Amino acid sequence: MQLKELIESRYSVRAYLPQPVEKEKVDYILECARLSPSACNLQPWRFYVVTDKAVMARIHESYNRDWFATAPMHIVVCKDTSESWKRTTSDNKDHADIDAAIASEHICLAVANVGLGTCWICNFKPDELTDALHLPDHIEPIAIFPLGYIDEEKSKPTEKKRKPAADIIEWI
Amino acid sequence: MQLKELIESRYSVRAYLPQPVEKEKVDYILECARLSPSACNLQPWRFYVVTDKAVMARIHESYNRDWFATAPMHIVVCKDTSESWKRTTSDNKDHADIDAAIASEHICLAVANVGLGTCWICNFKPDELTDALHLPDHIEPIAIFPLGYIDEEKSKPTEKKRKPAADIIEWI
Repeated sequence: MQLKELIESRYSVRAYLPQPVEKEKVDYILECARLSPSACNLQPWRFYVVTDKAVMARIHESYNRDWFATAPMHIVVCKDTSESWKRTTSDNKDHADIDAAIASEHICLAVANVGLGTCWICNFKPDELTDALHLPDHIEPIAIFPLGYIDEEKSKPTEKKRKPAADIIEWI
Repeated sequence: MQLKELIESRYSVRAYLPQPVEKEKVDYILECARLSPSACNLQPWRFYVVTDKAVMARIHESYNRDWFATAPMHIVVCKDTSESWKRTTSDNKDHADIDAAIASEHICLAVANVGLGTCWICNFKPDELTDALHLPDHIEPIAIFPLGYIDEEKSKPTEKKRKPAADIIEWI
């Protein structure tokens, strides 16, 4: 699938089949994330691939939705603020969120590319998710990606509602 | 091109031909950005497409490199903190950087998909870039993407150096 068709076809999936995902598909998704660009190529990210039932139960506590618990696995993307690039010109802005978001979106697109579903989840309770994964202070969770085959009876692609180009693009 | 090949093929281009970019290619790139997902679909982004010579000269002052001035145009991606989603569970974390980074990476991939070159630039002087674009307080520049045909005599793809999977991925 070409890039624009891939972007158009992906949507936030909130119903999954219980069948497990093949490791080769997970590896493809992770490889797309690993190859992401980052500021000064510092790659300040960590990926936690979770199938352990006890750990998943704790992750579900951090984001308590019935549909979320239908996914057979999760990928949690974290930033590493001890390794991230900080802007040198004036304001020392930390780019860890930006770099982790790049890798996260590669995951999102790669999931669609292999015919699976996911959904960006950011509205978790960060302290609970940090505890569930035993993260040290310099590792902060950015997004959870539930991962699985789409339950197509319960989950249908929705029409993309986006701002018109004229509202967000200015030609100068 | 499939997603992984696209991710593998793109690289930071630092030499451009002077020939202008066709508007249909710019429109494709912008459409890939416009369709990006964002937290609660709030789309807190603005895209400034710059070909005006005087404005480009001011942008070059914000990031003063000879190679940068070879690009015939730029896209500047900004976040809008007045529209961005803030996490509701506990810490009120602003997701504007994350959402702007998603749209930015769509630009980066789309540029490669149409056979052009770009380079993520974040090490600009934010105050100078803000002045150059006359941005209000709630609009903050995230990245500049110079855009153009690659000068293939001066710019060659480089081998991707990335951390090994074992250093950044943990299976739980």
